[in-house]
Amino acid sequence: MYSNGDIFVGEVIGTAILILFGAGVCAAVTLHYSKARSAGWVVIAFGWGLGVLAGAYTAAPLSGGHLNPAVTVGSAVAGGTAWSKVPLYILAQLVGALLGAVLAWALYYAQFAANSERDKAQPTVGIFATGPEIRSPAANLVSEIIATVGLVLPLLFFGQNKGIGVGQIPGARAGVYGSGINVLLVALLVVGIGLSLGGPTGYAVNPARDLGPRIAHALLPIPNKGSSDWSYAWIPVAGPLIGAVLSGLAYQAAF
Amino acid sequence: MYSNGDIFVGEVIGTAILILFGAGVCAAVTLHYSKARSAGWVVIAFGWGLGVLAGAYTAAPLSGGHLNPAVTVGSAVAGGTAWSKVPLYILAQLVGALLGAVLAWALYYAQFAANSERDKAQPTVGIFATGPEIRSPAANLVSEIIATVGLVLPLLFFGQNKGIGVGQIPGARAGVYGSGINVLLVALLVVGIGLSLGGPTGYAVNPARDLGPRIAHALLPIPNKGSSDWSYAWIPVAGPLIGAVLSGLAYQAAF
Amino acid sequence: MYSNGDIFVGEVIGTAILILFGAGVCAAVTLHYSKARSAGWVVIAFGWGLGVLAGAYTAAPLSGGHLNPAVTVGSAVAGGTAWSKVPLYILAQLVGALLGAVLAWALYYAQFAANSERDKAQPTVGIFATGPEIRSPAANLVSEIIATVGLVLPLLFFGQNKGIGVGQIPGARAGVYGSGINVLLVALLVVGIGLSLGGPTGYAVNPARDLGPRIAHALLPIPNKGSSDWSYAWIPVAGPLIGAVLSGLAYQAAF
Amino acid sequence: MYSNGDIFVGEVIGTAILILFGAGVCAAVTLHYSKARSAGWVVIAFGWGLGVLAGAYTAAPLSGGHLNPAVTVGSAVAGGTAWSKVPLYILAQLVGALLGAVLAWALYYAQFAANSERDKAQPTVGIFATGPEIRSPAANLVSEIIATVGLVLPLLFFGQNKGIGVGQIPGARAGVYGSGINVLLVALLVVGIGLSLGGPTGYAVNPARDLGPRIAHALLPIPNKGSSDWSYAWIPVAGPLIGAVLSGLAYQAAF
Repeated sequence: MYSNGDIFVGEVIGTAILILFGAGVCAAVTLHYSKARSAGWVVIAFGWGLGVLAGAYTAAPLSGGHLNPAVTVGSAVAGGTAWSKVPLYILAQLVGALLGAVLAWALYYAQFAANSERDKAQPTVGIFATGPEIRSPAANLVSEIIATVGLVLPLLFFGQNKGIGVGQIPGARAGVYGSGINVLLVALLVVGIGLSLGGPTGYAVNPARDLGPRIAHALLPIPNKGSSDWSYAWIPVAGPLIGAVLSGLAYQAAF
Repeated sequence: MYSNGDIFVGEVIGTAILILFGAGVCAAVTLHYSKARSAGWVVIAFGWGLGVLAGAYTAAPLSGGHLNPAVTVGSAVAGGTAWSKVPLYILAQLVGALLGAVLAWALYYAQFAANSERDKAQPTVGIFATGPEIRSPAANLVSEIIATVGLVLPLLFFGQNKGIGVGQIPGARAGVYGSGINVLLVALLVVGIGLSLGGPTGYAVNPARDLGPRIAHALLPIPNKGSSDWSYAWIPVAGPLIGAVLSGLAYQAAF
Repeated sequence: MYSNGDIFVGEVIGTAILILFGAGVCAAVTLHYSKARSAGWVVIAFGWGLGVLAGAYTAAPLSGGHLNPAVTVGSAVAGGTAWSKVPLYILAQLVGALLGAVLAWALYYAQFAANSERDKAQPTVGIFATGPEIRSPAANLVSEIIATVGLVLPLLFFGQNKGIGVGQIPGARAGVYGSGINVLLVALLVVGIGLSLGGPTGYAVNPARDLGPRIAHALLPIPNKGSSDWSYAWIPVAGPLIGAVLSGLAYQAAF
Repeated sequence: MYSNGDIFVGEVIGTAILILFGAGVCAAVTLHYSKARSAGWVVIAFGWGLGVLAGAYTAAPLSGGHLNPAVTVGSAVAGGTAWSKVPLYILAQLVGALLGAVLAWALYYAQFAANSERDKAQPTVGIFATGPEIRSPAANLVSEIIATVGLVLPLLFFGQNKGIGVGQIPGARAGVYGSGINVLLVALLVVGIGLSLGGPTGYAVNPARDLGPRIAHALLPIPNKGSSDWSYAWIPVAGPLIGAVLSGLAYQAAF
C-alpha cells in the first residue's frame, strides 16, 4: 500500500530522526561540556522513546514508520508486511540510521573535539552503538532476544491487526484511532524497555539502530575515538531478529 | 464475553509482560553491572507503570487486561466481571507472573551470576517481591490496603461502567474511546501510585505481582540468592484483596 | 447540571485521592524509611500531577472534577459554574482534602512513628501543607498568584467553553473529546507547574490542598510533629483565589 | 483564517505562558532557595516541554499556537501560513516572550534578591537566555540548526498538512483529531529535544524564546545580574530560522 519511493524516503527520514535523538541523548549524557552530562538513565530512556515518537510519527504517512528491521521482520512474520518489501525497508533503515548518527555527531562536534583533546579521551563507541556491561555472548544474546520480544510482541498486539504502526487500538471502533495514539504508545513502550530491560546490554532491540551508527563511528573523522567494537556487532543484529521472529509467531498463534 | 481460552492466554501473556518489565526494572536499578544501577525511584515507578501499559494493551483484546487479582476482584464486586470467571483470571495471572519473573531473571542472568560471586552477595528477593522498610504487619497491611484503593477505586471510576480496562472515559460519548486511552490512564495511575504510595512497602497492590515472582525466586537456581521472605508474603496478598473489595463497594455506593 | 449530592460525593472522593497522592509523595520523599526518600523534585511534581489525573478522572462523572477552589472560582468568574454551587464545591473540596491527608498519614504511619523517635525529629508540616523557602509575605503572595494563573488560565482556555474539566479540546469537533484527554492535559499541566513554578513556595495553587491538610496536621496525633505554621496559612488561600479571579477575567476578555 | 487580533492575543498569551514555564524552570533549578534547586536536566526538559503544552493549547483556538518564529517561518515555507501574517506572528511572539520573562522574574523575585546579596552572586542570564557550553560560533550555529530541524521537520510532518499546530494526526480520518493530540505530541517532542539535542547550546530552537527574555534580562532591575551576553544573541536567532527554512523545504520535497 505504500509506494517504494515513499517507503524509502519515510524510513530514511524517520530512522535518521530516531538516531539523531538516540545518539544525541547518549552524547548529551556522556560527553564533557554537555549541559546534560551525567543526567542519568531516565534521560537515556526518555530520549530514545521520544526519538521513536519523533521519527515514527514523521515517517508514518509515508512508510508506516517501522524504523527497525525487527519491527519489519516481526510484521512480515505476522503477515502485515509483504516479504518482498522487507529488503527495501531494512536498506532504508540502515541508511537513515547512518545519516542520523552523522547528524548527532555534527550537533555535538565541539564536544567530540574537546573529548579528543583531554589527557585521557573517553571511548566514544558507546554514544553510537550498544555494548554489554558483562561481555558474555550467550547471555548478551538472550538479553537482546527477550528485550526485543518485550518490544515487538506488544507492538504487534497493540495493532491487533497485521500492519505495524498503522494499526488500531484494541477495543476501539474500526478506523477511529488510525495510527494516532498507537505510535505514542509504542514510544512510551520504548521508554519502558529502556528503563526495565536495558541494563545488561543497552537495549539495541533494533539492528539498524546499532549497525548504522557503528558504521558511522568507524567512518567519521573523530580523533581519539577508540575502537568500534566490531566483535560485539553481531549480537545486536542477531538478537533482535530472533526476538522479532518469535514475536511474530506468538502473534500468529494468538490470533 | 471473553472466552475462557482467550482469558487464560491474554492474562498469562499480559501479566508475564508486566512482570518482565517490573522485575526487570528492579533488577536494572539494584544489580551491579547494570547500566541503570542506582537510577532512582522515578525509574522504578515509570518502569512498573509502563509495564502495565505494555501488558494491559497486549492483553486487552483477549481478556480485557486485568493482570491483577485485585482488579479482577474489584471488578467482580462492582458487577463488571462474573464471579465464575474470577478463579480463571487469578490462576492465569499467577502463571503469567511466574513466567515473567523467569524471563526477567534470564535477561539479567549475567548480573545475577556476578552478584553471587561478590564477596558479599546482596539479597535478591527485593527484585522479585515486595518488602517493607519498617516491618510491622498491621502498618504494612494498612499501607497495602490504602495503596490498592488508590489504584482500584480510580480504575473502576475511570471506566464508569462495570467492566475493567474496557471501559469508557467519563464524559466521552458511548463507544468513542473504547479501551484506548483508558489503559494509558491506568498506566500513568500506576506510575503515580509508585511515586506517592510506594514508600513504606514497595506497593504490591497486586497479589499476583508479589506471589508469582516470590515463587519464582524460591524455585530458580540463583546462587547466593538469600531468603524468599515467606513470612511477609501474606500481606501483599491480603492487603490488595481487602483494598479491592473496599473499592468495589465504594463504586457500588456511588453509581 | 450536576446534582448537589453528586457534586459533594465527587469532590470529596476526588480531592481525597488528590491529597492522598500529593501528601503521599511529600511523605515518600521526606520521611526516613521510605523507599522514595530523597528521590528529588521530579518525583514531587509527577506525584502531584498524577494525583490530579487520579482524582479528577474519578470525580469527573459526578462533579466535573474541580478539586480546587481556585478552579471553581475561576470557572464561576468565566461563567462556567453557577455561583450558587461554589460554596458546596469548596466545602466538599476541604472535606476531601482533610480526608486525603488522614489517609496519607495512615499509609505512612510507621514512618511518622519512626520520625518521632529519632533524636531530632524533623518537622512534618511540609508533608501536609506548603511553606516558602524565603519567608516574605508580599513575594510569596505574588508567587502563588502567578503560579495559579499558570494553572487556571490555561485550564479555562483548554476548555474553550465555560465549563471546567468537562470541556473540549480547542480545535476538535464539538463533543468528540468530552473530558477525556482534557483531564490528562491538566494533569500534565500540574506536573509542569510543579517543575517550573513551585520553587519559591511549593505551589499550593489550590486553597483546599493547603488548608485541608494543614487542619489535618493540627488535629492528627502525630508525636513530635512540630508547628502547623498557621502564620503562613492565609497566603496559599488568598494567592490562588486572586489568581483564579484574574484568570477568569482574562478568559472573559479573550472570548 | 485567524483574525489579526486573535493572532496577536493568542501568540502573546501563549508565548508568555511558554516562557513563564521555561524561564521558570531554569530559575527553579538554578537559584538558591528554590525547592527545585539542582533538580537536574530531566526537570529542565520536562519544564520546557510542558510549557509548550500549556502555552500552545491556550493559544490554539486563537492563533493556532505557533509561539515560535521558527514554527511560523517553517509553516510559511511549507505553505501553511501566509507570508503576510509572518511579521505579526513574530512581533506577538517577541512581546509574549518578554512578558513571560517578566512574570518568571516576579515569581522568583525573592530568589533573585537573595542571589544578589550573596558574596559572589551567580550570573543570571542563563535563566533567561541560552548560552553554549563551548563558545564556538560555527559549531553553536550548526547545533541550533540541527536541533531546530529536529523540532520543525517532525512538527510539519506530524500535521501532514500545510497548517501548523492545527493539523491532523497522520493516518487518522480527516477532522477526527483536530489539533487535540497534536499539541501534546509536539510538547513531548520538545521534551525529547531538550533531553537529546540540548547539550551543546541549551536548545533555543526558537528565536523569540531567546531574544525576548534576553531583552527582559537587560531591562529588568535585577541587582548583580551580570552580562546579558549580547555577543551570542545572533546565534539562537539565525540558527533556528535556518533550520526552519530547511525543514519547510524538506516538507515541500516530501509531499
